Amino acid sequence: MTTTLASYRWASLDRTTQQRLLQRPASSRSADLLAATAEIIEQVRRDGDTALRQLTRQFDGVAPDTLRVPTPQLEAAWHALDAKDQQALTRARDNIQRFHATQQHDASWVEVQPGVSCRQVRQPIDAVGLYVPGGSAPLPSALLMLATPARLADCPRVVMCSPPQSDGRIASVVLAAAWLCDIDEVYAVGGAQAIAAMAYGTSTLPKVDKIFGPGNAYVTAAKMLAAQDPQGAACDMPAGPSEVLVIADISANADVVAADLLAQAEHGPDSQVLLFTDSESLAAGVEQAVQRQLLMRDRRATIEAALAHSRTIVFASIDDALVASNAYAPEHLILNTVNADALSQRVTSAGSIFVGPWAAETFGDYCSGTNHVLPTYGFARAYSGVSLKDFCKFITVQRLSGDGFDDLADTARRLARLEGLDAHEAAVTVRQALRQKLSSHRQESA
Amino acid sequence: MTTTLASYRWASLDRTTQQRLLQRPASSRSADLLAATAEIIEQVRRDGDTALRQLTRQFDGVAPDTLRVPTPQLEAAWHALDAKDQQALTRARDNIQRFHATQQHDASWVEVQPGVSCRQVRQPIDAVGLYVPGGSAPLPSALLMLATPARLADCPRVVMCSPPQSDGRIASVVLAAAWLCDIDEVYAVGGAQAIAAMAYGTSTLPKVDKIFGPGNAYVTAAKMLAAQDPQGAACDMPAGPSEVLVIADISANADVVAADLLAQAEHGPDSQVLLFTDSESLAAGVEQAVQRQLLMRDRRATIEAALAHSRTIVFASIDDALVASNAYAPEHLILNTVNADALSQRVTSAGSIFVGPWAAETFGDYCSGTNHVLPTYGFARAYSGVSLKDFCKFITVQRLSGDGFDDLADTARRLARLEGLDAHEAAVTVRQALRQKLSSHRQESA
Repeated sequence: MTTTLASYRWASLDRTTQQRLLQRPASSRSADLLAATAEIIEQVRRDGDTALRQLTRQFDGVAPDTLRVPTPQLEAAWHALDAKDQQALTRARDNIQRFHATQQHDASWVEVQPGVSCRQVRQPIDAVGLYVPGGSAPLPSALLMLATPARLADCPRVVMCSPPQSDGRIASVVLAAAWLCDIDEVYAVGGAQAIAAMAYGTSTLPKVDKIFGPGNAYVTAAKMLAAQDPQGAACDMPAGPSEVLVIADISANADVVAADLLAQAEHGPDSQVLLFTDSESLAAGVEQAVQRQLLMRDRRATIEAALAHSRTIVFASIDDALVASNAYAPEHLILNTVNADALSQRVTSAGSIFVGPWAAETFGDYCSGTNHVLPTYGFARAYSGVSLKDFCKFITVQRLSGDGFDDLADTARRLARLEGLDAHEAAVTVRQALRQKLSSHRQESA
Repeated sequence: MTTTLASYRWASLDRTTQQRLLQRPASSRSADLLAATAEIIEQVRRDGDTALRQLTRQFDGVAPDTLRVPTPQLEAAWHALDAKDQQALTRARDNIQRFHATQQHDASWVEVQPGVSCRQVRQPIDAVGLYVPGGSAPLPSALLMLATPARLADCPRVVMCSPPQSDGRIASVVLAAAWLCDIDEVYAVGGAQAIAAMAYGTSTLPKVDKIFGPGNAYVTAAKMLAAQDPQGAACDMPAGPSEVLVIADISANADVVAADLLAQAEHGPDSQVLLFTDSESLAAGVEQAVQRQLLMRDRRATIEAALAHSRTIVFASIDDALVASNAYAPEHLILNTVNADALSQRVTSAGSIFVGPWAAETFGDYCSGTNHVLPTYGFARAYSGVSLKDFCKFITVQRLSGDGFDDLADTARRLARLEGLDAHEAAVTVRQALRQKLSSHRQESA
């Protein structure tokens, strides 16, 4: 039996080692990758649909008949699905919808002082693009997580791109999910070329304003490049390898904790899984359970690669573990302890929290209702998971009555003068002159 | 008299010309600029405070005694201020506070199905950095707009950086604004070196998680580079030249409209100002008023440079003007028309809207309560102005009772299988086995 999770005792380490243990494996974003991606984008901007066909042949090895998937194909994919799969997808969609629907905050007018009212108006983003990766296993859940809030936000145009498989078509289950989510503008194109097409538009695929969704290194690089360009499109959030941190005490079941670690590890060889505990015996039990369960898993090689840079840390107390977790800012945080509920209220940085023994991360990935597009790689210190607001813009509005204007005019003038902006002041004084003229006119008429 | 605003009749133009008229002047982001900025960042990461002192000597031509401004200096700056300026700043801060305080949406638990509850918890970002540019005129309003929501959000650490003036100190009025806003961690450092210090930390200035605020091309480039680096810091939004679009009809006063255009134009030679109207006579009146008022303005050269790429467009109707405005997505949108209120409800893209004849943009810049940090250069199609939420993270939480788990377990398993993720499924099945064991244990005890 080999040790698969490196194990440390927090209190016995110096501060530098402690900090090192909370660092992510280095990310590689090579200049070559960026240059290759920029070239793909350039090609799509220059040659449009022709470039998309050519790049699809080159990277996906197929030549789909049409870039845009005909709507009947979506409907057919839905009906071809097993009824139990249909039910599972529908139930997931419903739960996601129920939770995200509560995120609509339509603000009313605020009278900040008599005659001066402000408001924040929510407007959907006109056109959003959702990317669903292909690869070994198609991910319909990625579409549910993006299409559901896009529909709730009432975005007028919702576009989906996903790479064609070897038969020239998008995976049937992804098409079925699009049908379920009422997305009918679907394109069989993947990779950086799909991002370029959505960001800049081609004659078949008109440009969108913002792009969402996970993808490989080229997709991520293309989203970043497009988001930096005012002519391009915004993107959801910076990407990084997926990760989980489990905080567990002696009340936790070692098999459950081990299964949670392995579930995260199967995402990819660069996934990071951490166990923070105050119990040496739980740590030992989890280690044994990991060894045992690993033998039964399909993606054993991937899991082993991920475990190689993962770790167990034993703390003097769960409180200490929580302090370290807040510093690490995990994407997924599972709290499998007594009083998990109280503990969850002291979390200051995390993407999503799973409270108690029954809240497997699998539920958040699919069907508890929360969004699974979450900030990883430490980005949870400043970013939030995808929610309804990411599909909206918030426009502020201000309204001043004549009296409100009179009352605030001198304040605005004073501040403009303080900043040496006399044209800003003049925009107020010219109105003051007009107010006076109107007022004397009224007095004359009276 | 020279014509200062190029004038067009919308209905007589072909679609290509119409689209060209809604384009911004090209932005120049040279590779040289990025390379020079990256080198400054590298120097700060390598040499820390020593680099900050050296770069401050090099770029600001001064050597401040201390990087961190002693708190008594802030208090002294406040007390040195004219009482009327103190009142104006305080009133602006109060209005900003009143409006931003309404942006706190603390969500409660949502039971998406019996036993499955989700929640979105707001947490302040731990450490935020506010940049206030120096230059010809100090901008205390920039600090009010950032520090007020940062304080409302309860961010534990709020840092301000601003470049020292020729006397080696930050402009007194900016220090006074910091005192008013209860910011006491203030550093006399500017430019890309200030952004680098906040993003990566030095021994005097510990790292922050997110950086806000306007600045010159180097500051903007440094924020962008830091935001791309997981080791760096997030930033507020992409930057671009400031702009205003005025939609006005015959009911508008030409002097008022002209003053609004000039106020925006004085921001910088790259500012863009647009007038959309349905009235030839208003367009002519505004043109004359611009000529007249221009002679009285301090920053005449800047204004003339901005007007050179600005324009008036006459539309067949105000409705047509609104359609074009939504496509342009202006940072500031002034609606100086009859029924401005109704018109404002049909705006789909803009940073901030100023409704009616008295709502000068100057109020939004300083004291109506809305935030003046807004998406410009077309970014309003996908971005929003700064608000309370930008200083917060939203963490989702899910809680499953035993019964809630039992009810949703098979759905989650089905979806995991559909995506070929058997370790995800196992995280559910291992819990199902545990549930069964606990249940039979209970039955035996009974």
